[in-house]
Amino acid sequence: MAEESIIISVPKDMPVKRPREGEEVPVVLEDVNEKDAEYSISSVIPGWFSEISPMWPGEAHSLKVEKVLFQGKSDYQNVMVFQSSTYGKVLVLDGVIQLTERDECAYQEMITHLPLCSIPNPKKVLVIGGGDGGVLREVARHPTVEQIDICEIDKMVVDVSKQFFPDVAVGYEDPRVNLHIGDGVAFLKAVPEGTYDAVIVDSSDPIGPAQELFEKPFFQSVAKALRPGGVVCTQAESIWLHMHIIEDIVANCRHIFKGSVNYAWTTVPTYPSGVIGFMLCSTEGTAVDFKHPVNPIDDSKSDRPLKFYNSEIHEAAFCLPSFAKKVIEGKAK
Amino acid sequence: MAEESIIISVPKDMPVKRPREGEEVPVVLEDVNEKDAEYSISSVIPGWFSEISPMWPGEAHSLKVEKVLFQGKSDYQNVMVFQSSTYGKVLVLDGVIQLTERDECAYQEMITHLPLCSIPNPKKVLVIGGGDGGVLREVARHPTVEQIDICEIDKMVVDVSKQFFPDVAVGYEDPRVNLHIGDGVAFLKAVPEGTYDAVIVDSSDPIGPAQELFEKPFFQSVAKALRPGGVVCTQAESIWLHMHIIEDIVANCRHIFKGSVNYAWTTVPTYPSGVIGFMLCSTEGTAVDFKHPVNPIDDSKSDRPLKFYNSEIHEAAFCLPSFAKKVIEGKAK
Repeated sequence: MAEESIIISVPKDMPVKRPREGEEVPVVLEDVNEKDAEYSISSVIPGWFSEISPMWPGEAHSLKVEKVLFQGKSDYQNVMVFQSSTYGKVLVLDGVIQLTERDECAYQEMITHLPLCSIPNPKKVLVIGGGDGGVLREVARHPTVEQIDICEIDKMVVDVSKQFFPDVAVGYEDPRVNLHIGDGVAFLKAVPEGTYDAVIVDSSDPIGPAQELFEKPFFQSVAKALRPGGVVCTQAESIWLHMHIIEDIVANCRHIFKGSVNYAWTTVPTYPSGVIGFMLCSTEGTAVDFKHPVNPIDDSKSDRPLKFYNSEIHEAAFCLPSFAKKVIEGKAK
Repeated sequence: MAEESIIISVPKDMPVKRPREGEEVPVVLEDVNEKDAEYSISSVIPGWFSEISPMWPGEAHSLKVEKVLFQGKSDYQNVMVFQSSTYGKVLVLDGVIQLTERDECAYQEMITHLPLCSIPNPKKVLVIGGGDGGVLREVARHPTVEQIDICEIDKMVVDVSKQFFPDVAVGYEDPRVNLHIGDGVAFLKAVPEGTYDAVIVDSSDPIGPAQELFEKPFFQSVAKALRPGGVVCTQAESIWLHMHIIEDIVANCRHIFKGSVNYAWTTVPTYPSGVIGFMLCSTEGTAVDFKHPVNPIDDSKSDRPLKFYNSEIHEAAFCLPSFAKKVIEGKAK
């Protein structure tokens, strides 16, 4: 196709990431400082943050940036925080939106209460990942919980969250929380058998530091760390985008978790395709019927009432569109 | 903020729409042919289609464009069809995505079967809007239906759909379909009282030609055109973006529909925020319990089985997150 040049204006303090090798990004950027560009906004709309990834080729979601508040490179990933025009503050890891103040409630409440409301009296809970603290905030709503362990690999995520997302990182203030900075895979291996009532795996996508959290050996460690009839909930991608990944995760889980294996999903506008899923499994022991929660939350006296989760939306989360049902539940036969 | 200029390359055959007055678009485009620019791709990422609207400020969803297949201006709106990289062909009206081949199933199946599966033996159905034919395709699955009237204001939408979206426009091939090109508001006023079992309002957003379809007089005409205990389903925006619009629609509907008034929602990745909602109301008469479908579809012998809808997802669609429940169902008290 014939091409012509167009001048666009880009704020000086907003560097633009160059595409990685093999990544298709249609904008040719000139005159950008190479060093700055490497670790910063993967923006194809100047003044906007655009999320482009080989995980969801051909589409991009963009948020208008008011101000970049933090940019850093940890030992594991690029970490960025910006103030958006209409979604509040936004946390980005390796160019992928992890949370926005406007819609984080949906993800945090669902990944936490889907498992914890499915068992009576959860006492010991382990969170893998989730360094922003939002899952901790939600676990802390459960009065029966006595111990909340969290293992996050990247201290920068914890520090940045405490600095910029106080309403999320508030989870760390609960006295039941024990923070471990380290590799979740190694942490789990060292856990005595049958320790936890519930494990929540709040990971990023299976490209980058979270890769192992989608593999079989990891699920085996989780199963071992759970008491009989204990439950796990792991972030499990989008039915619209990653059916092949989900199919693999479901197959792995059916192999390892001898209680029940279920897929649930919810809406998160700033995640690719607008939805995110969860694998909910239980180990052999007292049967767990995830679709009918037995441990509802009473937030009537809370000064931070639930924004998203309720018992009806819990049950609804397990109802799948036909195209997904065929793949996910077909495996059960 | 200090600004610097950057050269980007734009394919010559891809004109770029200038922002309307009052519309915030951060990219300053130079050297674009004014005339071309007015009626074409509202693209801020060259080579991509970006959906930017005052209806959802501060965010944009973009699809990579392989080829623009059609661009025209009807008496009512700008009409565009492009081949995207990963969502199939895409229909755009006034810069807003109406459907993509990849995810149209969710919208068409839900807006149709939520009302039609909620009443026994629907016979006469009216579709307002829906010129692409997808709703007709879904209505035609119901063997009890004898008459399907459709009133679409814009003939160009019908023609373009027949040319570029044969799997959607296939709905027009059903012999029960009667197409009327004209204003839905005027059409409804002329309908004899109590004519239809169901009315489906498949409109675009309340900015542009569809504006009146969100106002009280229109709902009054719908109620009049329905038999006692008849049902209506109208497109009703996103709980994440347009709670104030939804609140108004709900209030209008409660005033007019004396049977039941309900809000349901579903996922559509290429709609802003990834979800779209529906108002489901019935007129005074035999009670309709939308949440428990009485008229399931048997598609076991269909050569086009349902991709999205099933009875479980029907019931789940009425379960709302707490923040939406408070506004929508709070009104019922």
